[in-house]
Amino acid sequence: MSVTRGFLVTVEGGEGCGKSTLLQGLAKKLSDEGRTVLLTREPGGTPLAESVRKLVLDPPEGDVWSPLAEALLMNAARSDHVQKKILPALQRGEWVLCDRYSDSTLVYQGVGGVSPNVLKAMQAEVTREARPDLTLILDASPEDLLQRRINRATSDVFENRPREFHDAVRNAFLKIAKTNPERCVVLDAMLSPKALVEAAFVTIEERLAVS
Amino acid sequence: MSVTRGFLVTVEGGEGCGKSTLLQGLAKKLSDEGRTVLLTREPGGTPLAESVRKLVLDPPEGDVWSPLAEALLMNAARSDHVQKKILPALQRGEWVLCDRYSDSTLVYQGVGGVSPNVLKAMQAEVTREARPDLTLILDASPEDLLQRRINRATSDVFENRPREFHDAVRNAFLKIAKTNPERCVVLDAMLSPKALVEAAFVTIEERLAVS
Repeated sequence: MSVTRGFLVTVEGGEGCGKSTLLQGLAKKLSDEGRTVLLTREPGGTPLAESVRKLVLDPPEGDVWSPLAEALLMNAARSDHVQKKILPALQRGEWVLCDRYSDSTLVYQGVGGVSPNVLKAMQAEVTREARPDLTLILDASPEDLLQRRINRATSDVFENRPREFHDAVRNAFLKIAKTNPERCVVLDAMLSPKALVEAAFVTIEERLAVS
Repeated sequence: MSVTRGFLVTVEGGEGCGKSTLLQGLAKKLSDEGRTVLLTREPGGTPLAESVRKLVLDPPEGDVWSPLAEALLMNAARSDHVQKKILPALQRGEWVLCDRYSDSTLVYQGVGGVSPNVLKAMQAEVTREARPDLTLILDASPEDLLQRRINRATSDVFENRPREFHDAVRNAFLKIAKTNPERCVVLDAMLSPKALVEAAFVTIEERLAVS
């Protein structure tokens, strides 16, 4: 990594775990420290990727995508996002904070039944030049996250799933954290928003040597 | 292959090579012989795949997809097409005639610079249960095909490319034919429409033992 390259920090976790609130708090804190921050999200982040996001989350005519088709679409969106937005920002030395990234595809479409080898091969190709420097995984029990989702007004095709699905998602994220300890840190999603931002910021300082 | 499974015949070749005309003639001839024929196309063939087709061929806001993103989108569309239309028809014992299929992605996105290994890995996963029984590759010189395109009113993002592109496409199709002789047959695209249907039908009789 050249000295001028920025950092890619991704935030992952089940629905309702507080990713957006954390990211806004982190972006503000890093900006206050004088860092240039690009806050973005997946699927989406560029006009073409957002058009794919719409197709995935709201399939025409109430039809349903297979998990394999979803994985391909997510990676198509990610490819555009990486090339047109994430890489240019990293090359400008910026901090890129991304709400979901490649781990979400491994987890959700993996739980959906797509072969891990196929998912990893696509991920390797699409994120080749943009591997996360740090991934924060927000973890909580499905019961706690369900309560948060009930308290929210939003919903999409990924949110209305049985308990077993949410257990499998949690376990898959924790497995990624365990097998990638140099990159991933698990944070308690049930911390207060302020405490979670503080914990994330301390983690960033420790892991990425912010001076 | 079980005795009740139908046949998947794909037709490939550069733009303006006469695929659609051949397919219509073949479909009629097979129907006249008492076969049940499903005529379909890629990208497309199902409502979801057609929505991806639109996104690929007409990107929002005049933006441009990378070849890798195109390959992922094409395979997402193909996955839907295979699962919801091609496989059910094959299982009913029908003849599926498809205007472009996985070879087009290998050729066009391969010429675009995507790693052949990545393209083949995606193809293997997406077409695992629906490999073509026969692929007819319509071949002609880029000059002859250009003249045909000039004579047509239609055009899309793939058609307005330099001569080198069309040469590379032709060579890539011929290479697929050479390395897959058990599956692929090259036909002269400059035959008359009637002679081309006849040549294709004879090939089908020889290769797939139509009785």
